[in-house]
Amino acid sequence: MTVAGKPLCAEEVPVGVPIDLGTYAPSAEEIVAFATAWDPLSFHVDPESARGSGFGGLIASGVHTLAIFQRLAVRSAYGHWAVIAGRALRDVRFPAPVRPGMALAGCLVVEEVQLVRPDRALITQRGCLVYGDRTVLTLRCDAYVRRLPPTWEPSPAGC
Amino acid sequence: MTVAGKPLCAEEVPVGVPIDLGTYAPSAEEIVAFATAWDPLSFHVDPESARGSGFGGLIASGVHTLAIFQRLAVRSAYGHWAVIAGRALRDVRFPAPVRPGMALAGCLVVEEVQLVRPDRALITQRGCLVYGDRTVLTLRCDAYVRRLPPTWEPSPAGC
Repeated sequence: MTVAGKPLCAEEVPVGVPIDLGTYAPSAEEIVAFATAWDPLSFHVDPESARGSGFGGLIASGVHTLAIFQRLAVRSAYGHWAVIAGRALRDVRFPAPVRPGMALAGCLVVEEVQLVRPDRALITQRGCLVYGDRTVLTLRCDAYVRRLPPTWEPSPAGC
Repeated sequence: MTVAGKPLCAEEVPVGVPIDLGTYAPSAEEIVAFATAWDPLSFHVDPESARGSGFGGLIASGVHTLAIFQRLAVRSAYGHWAVIAGRALRDVRFPAPVRPGMALAGCLVVEEVQLVRPDRALITQRGCLVYGDRTVLTLRCDAYVRRLPPTWEPSPAGC
Protein backbone atom coordinates (compact mmCIF):
# COMPACT_ATOMS: atom_id res chain seq x y z
CA MET A 1 0.00 0.00 0.00
CA THR A 2 3.02 2.32 0.21
CA VAL A 3 5.70 3.24 -2.30
CA ALA A 4 9.14 2.62 -0.75
CA GLY A 5 7.66 3.04 2.75
CA LYS A 6 6.22 6.49 2.00
CA PRO A 7 2.50 7.17 2.26
CA LEU A 8 0.64 7.03 -1.04
CA CYS A 9 -0.18 10.39 -2.60
CA ALA A 10 -3.54 10.87 -4.29
CA GLU A 11 -2.20 10.08 -7.77
CA GLU A 12 -0.89 6.72 -6.45
CA VAL A 13 -4.12 5.50 -4.84
CA PRO A 14 -5.75 2.90 -7.11
CA VAL A 15 -9.24 3.85 -8.35
CA GLY A 16 -11.95 1.21 -8.66
CA VAL A 17 -9.98 -1.59 -7.00
CA PRO A 18 -11.75 -3.15 -3.98
CA ILE A 19 -9.54 -3.12 -0.86
CA ASP A 20 -10.08 -5.98 1.61
CA LEU A 21 -10.08 -4.36 5.06
CA GLY A 22 -9.98 -7.58 7.08
CA THR A 23 -12.39 -8.44 9.88
CA TYR A 24 -13.34 -7.34 13.38
CA ALA A 25 -15.75 -8.98 15.83
CA PRO A 26 -17.10 -6.80 18.67
CA SER A 27 -17.80 -8.63 21.94
CA ALA A 28 -20.95 -8.08 24.00
CA GLU A 29 -18.78 -6.34 26.61
CA GLU A 30 -17.35 -3.95 24.00
CA ILE A 31 -20.82 -3.21 22.56
CA VAL A 32 -22.12 -2.30 26.02
CA ALA A 33 -18.99 -0.29 26.96
CA PHE A 34 -18.98 1.74 23.72
CA ALA A 35 -22.70 2.48 23.93
CA THR A 36 -22.56 3.32 27.64
CA ALA A 37 -20.10 6.08 26.76
CA TRP A 38 -21.58 7.32 23.49
CA ASP A 39 -25.04 5.94 22.66
CA PRO A 40 -26.75 4.68 25.83
CA LEU A 41 -30.06 3.54 24.33
CA SER A 42 -31.46 0.50 26.15
CA PHE A 43 -31.04 -2.00 23.28
CA HIS A 44 -27.30 -1.16 23.12
CA VAL A 45 -26.52 -1.24 26.86
CA ASP A 46 -29.06 -3.45 28.66
CA PRO A 47 -29.12 -7.12 27.53
CA GLU A 48 -32.40 -7.82 29.33
CA SER A 49 -34.22 -4.83 27.87
CA ALA A 50 -32.71 -5.68 24.45
CA ARG A 51 -34.20 -9.20 24.64
CA GLY A 52 -37.64 -7.62 24.94
CA SER A 53 -37.02 -5.22 22.03
CA GLY A 54 -37.79 -5.87 18.37
CA PHE A 55 -34.18 -7.03 17.94
CA GLY A 56 -34.51 -9.86 20.50
CA GLY A 57 -31.06 -9.11 21.94
CA LEU A 58 -28.20 -6.68 22.28
CA ILE A 59 -27.15 -4.79 19.10
CA ALA A 60 -24.19 -2.48 18.50
CA SER A 61 -24.61 1.29 18.26
CA GLY A 62 -24.48 2.63 14.72
CA VAL A 63 -21.63 4.93 15.78
CA HIS A 64 -19.77 1.85 17.08
CA THR A 65 -20.37 0.05 13.77
CA LEU A 66 -18.99 3.09 11.95
CA ALA A 67 -15.98 3.16 14.32
CA ILE A 68 -15.27 -0.51 13.49
CA PHE A 69 -15.29 0.38 9.77
CA GLN A 70 -12.93 3.31 10.39
CA ARG A 71 -10.54 1.16 12.44
CA LEU A 72 -10.33 -1.43 9.66
CA ALA A 73 -10.01 1.25 6.96
CA VAL A 74 -7.15 3.05 8.77
CA ARG A 75 -5.25 -0.20 9.20
CA SER A 76 -5.59 -1.33 5.58
CA ALA A 77 -5.94 1.91 3.61
CA TYR A 78 -5.96 5.39 5.19
CA GLY A 79 -2.93 4.64 7.38
CA HIS A 80 -0.95 4.13 4.16
CA TRP A 81 -2.26 7.24 2.40
CA ALA A 82 -1.02 10.83 2.83
CA VAL A 83 -4.34 11.87 4.41
CA ILE A 84 -4.76 15.58 5.13
CA ALA A 85 -8.28 15.37 6.62
CA GLY A 86 -11.61 13.64 6.35
CA ARG A 87 -14.30 15.86 4.85
CA ALA A 88 -17.66 14.10 4.92
CA LEU A 89 -19.64 10.91 5.37
CA ARG A 90 -22.60 10.45 3.08
CA ASP A 91 -25.41 7.90 2.99
CA VAL A 92 -24.31 5.93 6.05
CA ARG A 93 -26.84 3.11 6.30
CA PHE A 94 -27.35 0.31 8.79
CA PRO A 95 -29.38 -2.26 6.83
CA ALA A 96 -29.06 -5.06 9.44
CA PRO A 97 -28.19 -5.16 13.15
CA VAL A 98 -24.69 -5.96 14.46
CA ARG A 99 -24.78 -8.53 17.26
CA PRO A 100 -22.03 -9.62 19.66
CA GLY A 101 -19.36 -11.86 18.14
CA MET A 102 -20.21 -11.22 14.48
CA ALA A 103 -16.95 -11.19 12.48
CA LEU A 104 -17.54 -8.13 10.30
CA ALA A 105 -15.57 -7.99 7.05
CA GLY A 106 -14.77 -4.57 5.61
CA CYS A 107 -14.36 -3.45 2.02
CA LEU A 108 -13.40 -0.08 0.52
CA VAL A 109 -13.33 1.12 -3.10
CA VAL A 110 -12.03 4.47 -4.31
CA GLU A 111 -14.63 5.84 -6.67
CA GLU A 112 -13.03 9.10 -7.74
CA VAL A 113 -9.86 11.16 -7.29
CA GLN A 114 -10.47 14.86 -7.96
CA LEU A 115 -7.34 17.01 -8.20
CA VAL A 116 -9.00 19.96 -6.50
CA ARG A 117 -5.87 22.00 -5.65
CA PRO A 118 -2.18 21.90 -6.55
CA ASP A 119 -1.40 20.38 -3.14
CA ARG A 120 -4.42 18.15 -2.54
CA ALA A 121 -7.02 15.85 -4.06
CA LEU A 122 -10.47 14.90 -2.83
CA ILE A 123 -10.81 11.11 -2.78
CA THR A 124 -14.38 9.79 -2.82
CA GLN A 125 -14.86 6.24 -1.56
CA ARG A 126 -17.56 3.65 -1.03
CA GLY A 127 -17.29 1.27 1.90
CA CYS A 128 -19.16 -1.52 3.63
CA LEU A 129 -19.15 -4.04 6.44
CA VAL A 130 -20.66 -7.47 5.83
CA TYR A 131 -21.34 -10.53 7.96
CA GLY A 132 -21.63 -13.59 5.71
CA ASP A 133 -24.08 -12.57 2.99
CA ARG A 134 -25.62 -9.85 5.18
CA THR A 135 -24.55 -6.21 4.77
CA VAL A 136 -24.62 -4.33 8.08
CA LEU A 137 -23.08 -0.99 6.98
CA THR A 138 -22.78 0.90 3.73
CA LEU A 139 -21.38 4.40 3.32
CA ARG A 140 -19.76 6.91 1.04
CA CYS A 141 -17.00 9.14 2.36
CA ASP A 142 -14.59 11.83 1.16
CA ALA A 143 -11.10 12.69 2.35
CA TYR A 144 -8.44 15.17 1.30
CA VAL A 145 -5.14 13.48 0.40
CA ARG A 146 -1.83 15.16 -0.50
CA ARG A 147 -0.81 15.21 -4.17
CA LEU A 148 2.60 14.27 -5.51
CA PRO A 149 5.04 17.18 -5.53
CA PRO A 150 5.19 18.96 -8.91
CA THR A 151 7.80 17.47 -11.21
CA TRP A 152 10.94 19.56 -11.17
CA GLU A 153 13.73 19.88 -13.66
CA PRO A 154 17.12 20.78 -12.16
CA SER A 155 18.85 23.75 -13.75
CA PRO A 156 21.97 22.88 -15.73
CA ALA A 157 25.12 23.18 -13.61
CA GLY A 158 26.43 26.72 -13.46
CA CYS A 159 23.11 28.41 -14.27
CA MET B 1 -39.46 15.47 26.95
CA THR B 2 -41.67 12.62 28.19
CA VAL B 3 -45.42 12.39 28.76
CA ALA B 4 -46.07 11.19 32.34
CA GLY B 5 -42.65 9.47 32.39
CA LYS B 6 -43.36 7.44 29.23
CA PRO B 7 -41.15 7.78 26.15
CA LEU B 8 -42.55 10.07 23.48
CA CYS B 9 -44.16 8.33 20.52
CA ALA B 10 -43.61 9.73 17.03
CA GLU B 11 -46.83 11.77 17.04
CA GLU B 12 -45.69 13.49 20.26
CA VAL B 13 -42.22 14.56 19.09
CA PRO B 14 -42.27 18.29 18.24
CA VAL B 15 -41.43 19.12 14.61
CA GLY B 16 -39.35 22.16 13.74
CA VAL B 17 -38.47 23.07 17.34
CA PRO B 18 -34.70 23.30 18.01
CA ILE B 19 -33.64 21.09 20.94
CA ASP B 20 -30.64 22.32 22.97
CA LEU B 21 -28.48 19.24 23.55
CA GLY B 22 -26.10 20.83 26.07
CA THR B 23 -22.32 20.77 25.79
CA TYR B 24 -19.40 18.34 25.94
CA ALA B 25 -15.67 19.12 25.94
CA PRO B 26 -13.31 16.28 24.95
CA SER B 27 -9.92 16.30 26.67
CA ALA B 28 -6.65 15.66 24.83
CA GLU B 29 -6.41 12.32 26.64
CA GLU B 30 -9.88 11.31 25.47
CA ILE B 31 -9.16 12.39 21.88
CA VAL B 32 -6.01 10.24 21.83
CA ALA B 33 -7.67 7.26 23.56
CA PHE B 34 -10.70 7.25 21.24
CA ALA B 35 -8.58 7.55 18.11
CA THR B 36 -6.06 4.96 19.29
CA ALA B 37 -8.93 2.47 19.40
CA TRP B 38 -10.90 3.52 16.34
CA ASP B 39 -9.12 6.02 14.07
CA PRO B 40 -5.35 5.91 14.68
CA LEU B 41 -4.23 8.51 12.13
CA SER B 42 -1.20 10.46 13.34
CA PHE B 43 -2.94 13.85 13.76
CA HIS B 44 -5.49 12.20 16.12
CA VAL B 45 -3.08 10.16 18.27
CA ASP B 46 0.40 11.76 18.20
CA PRO B 47 0.57 15.35 19.54
CA GLU B 48 4.07 15.91 18.13
CA SER B 49 3.20 14.69 14.63
CA ALA B 50 -0.05 16.72 14.83
CA ARG B 51 1.92 19.91 15.57
CA GLY B 52 3.75 19.40 12.27
CA SER B 53 0.51 18.75 10.33
CA GLY B 54 -1.64 21.34 8.61
CA PHE B 55 -3.78 21.52 11.78
CA GLY B 56 -0.87 22.62 13.99
CA GLY B 57 -1.98 20.33 16.82
CA LEU B 58 -4.10 17.39 17.90
CA ILE B 59 -7.63 17.18 16.46
CA ALA B 60 -10.45 14.78 17.28
CA SER B 61 -11.43 11.94 14.97
CA GLY B 62 -14.58 12.59 12.95
CA VAL B 63 -16.08 9.40 14.39
CA HIS B 64 -15.33 10.74 17.89
CA THR B 65 -17.01 14.06 16.99
CA LEU B 66 -20.04 12.12 15.78
CA ALA B 67 -20.01 10.03 18.98
CA ILE B 68 -20.07 13.25 21.05
CA PHE B 69 -23.12 14.42 19.09
CA GLN B 70 -24.84 11.07 19.64
CA ARG B 71 -24.09 11.13 23.39
CA LEU B 72 -25.63 14.59 23.73
CA ALA B 73 -28.60 13.67 21.51
CA VAL B 74 -29.40 10.51 23.51
CA ARG B 75 -29.30 12.42 26.78
CA SER B 76 -31.54 15.28 25.63
CA ALA B 77 -33.74 13.71 22.94
CA TYR B 78 -33.47 10.07 21.79
CA GLY B 79 -33.38 8.76 25.36
CA HIS B 80 -36.84 10.25 25.83
CA TRP B 81 -38.28 8.97 22.54
CA ALA B 82 -39.65 5.47 21.85
CA VAL B 83 -36.80 4.74 19.43
CA ILE B 84 -37.01 1.46 17.51
CA ALA B 85 -33.76 1.82 15.54
CA GLY B 86 -31.52 4.29 13.77
CA ARG B 87 -31.70 3.98 10.00
CA ALA B 88 -29.19 6.31 8.36
CA LEU B 89 -26.81 9.23 8.65
CA ARG B 90 -26.66 11.59 5.70
CA ASP B 91 -24.40 14.50 4.82
CA VAL B 92 -22.18 14.25 7.90
CA ARG B 93 -19.71 17.12 7.51
CA PHE B 94 -16.76 18.29 9.55
CA PRO B 95 -16.35 21.95 8.51
CA ALA B 96 -13.79 22.81 11.22
CA PRO B 97 -11.45 20.78 13.44
CA VAL B 98 -12.29 19.80 17.03
CA ARG B 99 -9.40 20.51 19.41
CA PRO B 100 -8.89 19.43 23.04
CA GLY B 101 -11.01 21.30 25.58
CA MET B 102 -13.45 22.87 23.12
CA ALA B 103 -16.91 22.96 24.78
CA LEU B 104 -19.06 21.72 21.89
CA ALA B 105 -22.74 22.72 22.01
CA GLY B 106 -25.24 20.43 20.29
CA CYS B 107 -28.52 21.21 18.60
CA LEU B 108 -31.15 18.96 17.01
CA VAL B 109 -34.27 19.80 14.99
CA VAL B 110 -36.87 17.32 13.80
CA GLU B 111 -37.53 18.10 10.16
CA GLU B 112 -40.18 15.55 9.30
CA VAL B 113 -42.26 12.76 10.85
CA GLN B 114 -43.43 10.25 8.25
CA LEU B 115 -46.04 7.74 9.44
CA VAL B 116 -44.60 4.92 7.35
CA ARG B 117 -46.35 1.96 9.06
CA PRO B 118 -49.17 1.49 11.56
CA ASP B 119 -46.60 0.78 14.30
CA ARG B 120 -43.75 3.14 13.38
CA ALA B 121 -42.76 6.51 11.94
CA LEU B 122 -39.54 7.60 10.29
CA ILE B 123 -38.26 10.77 11.98
CA THR B 124 -35.82 12.86 9.92
CA GLN B 125 -33.61 15.26 11.85
CA ARG B 126 -30.91 17.86 11.34
CA GLY B 127 -28.17 18.23 13.93
CA CYS B 128 -25.00 20.16 14.62
CA LEU B 129 -22.17 20.78 17.04
CA VAL B 130 -20.80 24.30 17.38
CA TYR B 131 -17.96 25.92 19.28
CA GLY B 132 -18.64 29.62 19.70
CA ASP B 133 -19.56 30.84 16.21
CA ARG B 134 -17.73 27.95 14.53
CA THR B 135 -19.68 24.89 13.35
CA VAL B 136 -17.64 21.69 13.69
CA LEU B 137 -20.29 19.09 12.72
CA THR B 138 -23.47 19.10 10.66
CA LEU B 139 -25.56 16.07 9.79
CA ARG B 140 -28.94 14.74 8.86
CA CYS B 141 -30.17 11.48 10.35
CA ASP B 142 -33.23 9.23 10.32
CA ALA B 143 -34.61 6.97 13.03
CA TYR B 144 -37.66 4.75 13.38
CA VAL B 145 -39.81 5.67 16.37
CA ARG B 146 -42.91 3.84 17.68
CA ARG B 147 -46.30 5.37 16.96
CA LEU B 148 -49.08 5.89 19.48
CA PRO B 149 -51.32 2.83 19.85
CA PRO B 150 -54.47 3.07 17.70
CA THR B 151 -57.33 4.72 19.55
CA TRP B 152 -59.70 2.14 20.93
CA GLU B 153 -63.35 2.38 21.94
CA PRO B 154 -64.40 -0.04 24.68
CA SER B 155 -67.48 -2.11 23.91
CA PRO B 156 -70.55 -1.23 25.97
CA ALA B 157 -70.87 -3.39 29.12
CA GLY B 158 -72.55 -6.69 28.49
CA CYS B 159 -71.77 -6.85 24.76
